[in-house]
Amino acid sequence: MDSDSPFSPAFVSVFVPGSTFLAVAFAAFLWYRVSLVKVRDDEEGTSESLLEAGTGSNASVAAKVADIQDAITDGAVGFLATEYKYIFYFMAAFSAVIFVLLGSQDGFKTKYTTDVDGRPQAPGLFIALFSTISFILGATTSSLSGYLGMMIATYANGRTALEARKGVAPAFMTAFRSGAVMGFLLSGLGLLILFTAVVLFKMFYFKDDWAGLYECITGYGLGGSTIALFGRVGGGIYTKAADVGADLVGKVEKDIPEDDPRNPAVIADNVGDNVGDIAGMGADLFGSFAEATCAALVVSSLSSLGAGRCIDGNCLAGSHNWAAMNYPLMLTACGIVVCFFTTLVATDIAPAKNISQIEPTLKRQLQISTVFMLIVVLGITFGTLPSKFQLYMPDNSVKTVHNWQMFVSVALGLVSGYLIGHMTEIYTSNTYKPVIDVADSCKTGAATNIIFGLALGYKSCIIPCCALAVTIYFSYACSGMYGIACSALGMLGTLATGLAIDAYGPISDNAGGIAEMAEMGEEIRERTDALDAAGNTTAAVGKGFAIGSAALVSLALFGAYVTRADIDFASASILDKKVFPGLLIGAMLPYWFSAMTMKSVGRAALAMVEEVRRQFNTIPGLMEGTTKPEYKKCIEISTQASLAEMGPPGALVIFTPLVVGTLFGVSTLAGVLVGALISGVQLAISASNTGGAWDNAKKYLEAGRTEHARMLGGKGTEAHKAAVIGDTVGDPLKDTSGPSLNILIKLMAVESLVFAPFFATHTRDGLLFQFFN
Amino acid sequence: MDSDSPFSPAFVSVFVPGSTFLAVAFAAFLWYRVSLVKVRDDEEGTSESLLEAGTGSNASVAAKVADIQDAITDGAVGFLATEYKYIFYFMAAFSAVIFVLLGSQDGFKTKYTTDVDGRPQAPGLFIALFSTISFILGATTSSLSGYLGMMIATYANGRTALEARKGVAPAFMTAFRSGAVMGFLLSGLGLLILFTAVVLFKMFYFKDDWAGLYECITGYGLGGSTIALFGRVGGGIYTKAADVGADLVGKVEKDIPEDDPRNPAVIADNVGDNVGDIAGMGADLFGSFAEATCAALVVSSLSSLGAGRCIDGNCLAGSHNWAAMNYPLMLTACGIVVCFFTTLVATDIAPAKNISQIEPTLKRQLQISTVFMLIVVLGITFGTLPSKFQLYMPDNSVKTVHNWQMFVSVALGLVSGYLIGHMTEIYTSNTYKPVIDVADSCKTGAATNIIFGLALGYKSCIIPCCALAVTIYFSYACSGMYGIACSALGMLGTLATGLAIDAYGPISDNAGGIAEMAEMGEEIRERTDALDAAGNTTAAVGKGFAIGSAALVSLALFGAYVTRADIDFASASILDKKVFPGLLIGAMLPYWFSAMTMKSVGRAALAMVEEVRRQFNTIPGLMEGTTKPEYKKCIEISTQASLAEMGPPGALVIFTPLVVGTLFGVSTLAGVLVGALISGVQLAISASNTGGAWDNAKKYLEAGRTEHARMLGGKGTEAHKAAVIGDTVGDPLKDTSGPSLNILIKLMAVESLVFAPFFATHTRDGLLFQFFN
Repeated sequence: MDSDSPFSPAFVSVFVPGSTFLAVAFAAFLWYRVSLVKVRDDEEGTSESLLEAGTGSNASVAAKVADIQDAITDGAVGFLATEYKYIFYFMAAFSAVIFVLLGSQDGFKTKYTTDVDGRPQAPGLFIALFSTISFILGATTSSLSGYLGMMIATYANGRTALEARKGVAPAFMTAFRSGAVMGFLLSGLGLLILFTAVVLFKMFYFKDDWAGLYECITGYGLGGSTIALFGRVGGGIYTKAADVGADLVGKVEKDIPEDDPRNPAVIADNVGDNVGDIAGMGADLFGSFAEATCAALVVSSLSSLGAGRCIDGNCLAGSHNWAAMNYPLMLTACGIVVCFFTTLVATDIAPAKNISQIEPTLKRQLQISTVFMLIVVLGITFGTLPSKFQLYMPDNSVKTVHNWQMFVSVALGLVSGYLIGHMTEIYTSNTYKPVIDVADSCKTGAATNIIFGLALGYKSCIIPCCALAVTIYFSYACSGMYGIACSALGMLGTLATGLAIDAYGPISDNAGGIAEMAEMGEEIRERTDALDAAGNTTAAVGKGFAIGSAALVSLALFGAYVTRADIDFASASILDKKVFPGLLIGAMLPYWFSAMTMKSVGRAALAMVEEVRRQFNTIPGLMEGTTKPEYKKCIEISTQASLAEMGPPGALVIFTPLVVGTLFGVSTLAGVLVGALISGVQLAISASNTGGAWDNAKKYLEAGRTEHARMLGGKGTEAHKAAVIGDTVGDPLKDTSGPSLNILIKLMAVESLVFAPFFATHTRDGLLFQFFN
Repeated sequence: MDSDSPFSPAFVSVFVPGSTFLAVAFAAFLWYRVSLVKVRDDEEGTSESLLEAGTGSNASVAAKVADIQDAITDGAVGFLATEYKYIFYFMAAFSAVIFVLLGSQDGFKTKYTTDVDGRPQAPGLFIALFSTISFILGATTSSLSGYLGMMIATYANGRTALEARKGVAPAFMTAFRSGAVMGFLLSGLGLLILFTAVVLFKMFYFKDDWAGLYECITGYGLGGSTIALFGRVGGGIYTKAADVGADLVGKVEKDIPEDDPRNPAVIADNVGDNVGDIAGMGADLFGSFAEATCAALVVSSLSSLGAGRCIDGNCLAGSHNWAAMNYPLMLTACGIVVCFFTTLVATDIAPAKNISQIEPTLKRQLQISTVFMLIVVLGITFGTLPSKFQLYMPDNSVKTVHNWQMFVSVALGLVSGYLIGHMTEIYTSNTYKPVIDVADSCKTGAATNIIFGLALGYKSCIIPCCALAVTIYFSYACSGMYGIACSALGMLGTLATGLAIDAYGPISDNAGGIAEMAEMGEEIRERTDALDAAGNTTAAVGKGFAIGSAALVSLALFGAYVTRADIDFASASILDKKVFPGLLIGAMLPYWFSAMTMKSVGRAALAMVEEVRRQFNTIPGLMEGTTKPEYKKCIEISTQASLAEMGPPGALVIFTPLVVGTLFGVSTLAGVLVGALISGVQLAISASNTGGAWDNAKKYLEAGRTEHARMLGGKGTEAHKAAVIGDTVGDPLKDTSGPSLNILIKLMAVESLVFAPFFATHTRDGLLFQFFN
């Protein structure tokens, strides 16, 4: 029997929800601070101070900003409303599938039973019901977080632009605070609802069936990830259709600047930043958090911390240690506290005072939170976990794990997350050689730019993959699949800060767009550009994090799937005749998926191009700026196209595990999951870094800050045109295909995990193979 | 004990070498027919008939052609000579490594021993020595085949151009016959030398140690593949540096047509077609053939056909069935006979008479040989193999295999090869919708062209992967890894025809270049263009074959590796802590490798661009055509660049198995091999089809044969410029990175197989992991 944890169960039961209240309260406080910036005359607040700065009539500028902000908010809300309507129908249908498939296992029994080892087992109906409830809870939390994030983003973009009249520092503060609202709200809500569900389910229905309890909770991860699928794919197509469409006509054909109000697609483009980069990214990372936690809980519920387990009559006694079982939740809870103090550094202790301090301030956020978290994790690990406990390894051997080994796993995740983020920066920021090389290649035209950019993306896979491989090896060696799940949670430990920085980017980007559209003048635009540039680099870093954590999370989910589906070592061998074809097909799926999403963006952008051209050709006075374009038409096109186009890739991801698990059995599905994981990681990293590099190579030429950059030529030169082509190609790669692949690998894994008991019972060897035999 | 095979050992011993004599004799005959076309006045032959056709003074045209042909031959021979010099040093060093590592296993003993089961075992020194000899033999055969292929290609290109003056039919005949010379020489020589080596080794040294014998023979595959590495990578960089460099200045900057003699890089470009597409492709497919045969022999040497095997004292009696053991060689031998008759159809029975018949004639070659081969394989299988035999499956169980099951395996390989080729055609020929869609996207510029092209390549992975997965599953289910190796041989059964068609392409391409440079007139150029267009499609089909067979071959080699390294099912489980990180790193390698090869092409092309620009700027009268450019300078640049650049990617491929096997042990290496295989296949297929599609989309716009194509615009329009950018990006993808990946996956597998006994003895768990434990 394990020794007790130093922390009492009561302490854990108070600390976890306590941290979520802190998160929500802090988010509310930050929101209040942002709301002090007023955009309308009839609002009270600090608007009088605006009179001191800025160009032109303040009242009229503020009114323009308010109008534009309203248009963006309307567009974003309109899109989400339509998207959520479809999602609602889909969720209803999918809930029914979950309920029926899981309930059918034991014929919807309602009586508690005991398993062969005498431990209590919740009836099938309960499992089905609570899995479905968890699924709905996860989906709702994810939708709510996306919606709230987007509301604050669209609330903050205009305010950031207005504050830019006072200077860079206040504008930065507004954008950063708003990003932090999203970060804290999302991690707080996510953790709170998950913890509450666990406590309520356990209290009223599951008694001592810990395995059944955590099996049901997995539905929460599935729900979160399903919303993320629609958010990433739909949002990604929306934003890039508008962006590419606006650029192809505006920049290339009409030679007007980005965000010019004469461009009919400009509002759609700004809406896109919110639905894609805010709601989509939020749902993605929320999904990672939810899934990693569920995977950790499932694996540990069968260890000596939880209810124990019997294999072939050989039983591992469980200690039902409530404090230790909640270790994964404690990691996230203390992450919130760490991020809280880290955020105070940027908002109050050492805020950025001028342009040159913005990027360092943002980067310091990640560094501080990583180091701080490392120390806190040490304490939490020794406080929450007993000095040693036992768990089953995937080969069914029992391993005694020391608490310092868990610290190693979590620390590896945290550090390798930081390393992956840092490598992403090196490959996508134009202060380093790789992007400057790509910019250099523009002087011989678009073709060499594309060749060098693709090569850069391919090359950027090396270090992240090695970091992941090292993390996986040692985490696994230390504590099996539990180690991997907790290492994913370690990587996500600084989630609130990561999300704050991520959300900061699109808010600044929008602020720049609003400044341009409201004709706030050159000086203001330069300030918002500086905010935006810093956001670009940190956005790339955020994408790196998202991919790295997705890889660890889906491996952890895979480990939990293998446990639940009772797959032994040998039947998951690459030498197995069912596994290898699975690996090959799995490795192909990310390509198929990317082909669909990229073509979707292409098609939607072409539709946008035609609409924009039509408006330029048929609306008199548009080019001269005397008539307003029909923004709404473009918003409608993006909305309709993205909703229509997200069907096929969504279906591919959602149906693959069901079809493979049913027709080809659990071993083939294991192959498919691993194949998709190892191939998807490469494709996602290379797509997102290639796109980021092209974007920043173009910015490098445009900014012309160094002798070398000026020698290559600024706007209007052939080299710049080549750079714009690269940037346009990179848009769908970095903002649609690449990030959507995270969802592909995670969602297939969590779905397999949820349906694992069904497959294991009914279609272990696959219906099709049974037919052949 | 198995029943006997219907064919006697003597019959097999006569049939196999007999088929190779047929191949060599037929090749000599075809070469003689080609040599009847004379290019110099002092040669006797049919040149008088040339007087009847063509434009301008025949004597002066022929003299020009002779000069150009000589220049191309000199360039190609020069490159190969330099390349082979480097290869010689490398081979010498690598031979020493093989000798030392394999000999060190039992301390270079020289006495025969018997193993625990009482069977004879050749001493370590013999194994080391004969493995090294096999390696040198394989390398020499491959080099020789490449050299001979290139000699006939450079011999035929000018003759094809001259024959085009008489009409399309004679020109087609010359090019096709020359391609066939290469096809038959290569398959004949490869089989003959392999068979001779087996017979001699066995007769004098190995007595009844069949396992040791075939272990040594594997060196032949390694030798062939190592040459292929340098051929594909070096040749690929050479040809694309010249091509991209020539296009970037000639087409884009100076607006002069392709193959214009004023372009200083034009000869280098034509040389490149020979060293890349002829010597490189030949070495690649020769490697596939050699490796598939070796893998099949290794696996079957331990079956009841060979010497049998004992696992844990449980012995499988071997019948030492010489006829049945040579089944893999019989497949290739009867393939030669099938291809012989198939070739007669195109050269004598139903030759192409006009332009419209060229492409159907070439495609019919593949169809006829596939159907014919299917029937012959049926006979060979029932003749060579006993009605049933036993072999070990990778899980160490014994399986009884019926001869019809072997037929199923081989037939699946043959049919899926055809299917993969056909899908490649659908995705790269501009008579089908996918390429027309890509051409369509050019109307909104280069960016959409690139986006749609990339999406096309990704999508084109679906069917080939499914075909491979089905083939692998059933071949394996029928007869384990032996089935997979034989299914690879089935896919390569029509090798001679496949190679003939592949080699036809660059010969026609060169003929077109020569016609342009010798100013033979519009009419002749149109004829050579028609030949070239047909060659383009078949070249893409050939690439599909090469990738498909590479995948099967490396899986078969992997199976043999697992057998030799004695890895059991569970230690190759994806759940093993050493295997999963291996899979992840393996999946990353194709990306790293592609990054290197693409950047190499980019860098070499930039050097070429500068040289071409320099010549245009400093040589007076060059643009006007009054002065000749310095072709040799460009040839030197391509030669030097390709040799310098092939080092790093070559090192990556060659050192990875050695480093991983030594430091991380046999399980991690198994993971790396499978990861590289499943990820490399996708990247290779998508790269090669994307490139092919862009090439043909550009041709679609240029040819303007349909209403739709003319609507998009011809040469000089914006759409055409966008198409040219796509084509240029596609060049390194389809001719350097993509095909080189075949070698990556095969070479790592065969190298692991050769060194498997060393790893298994000395570094089974990896030196680094031992250090941690």
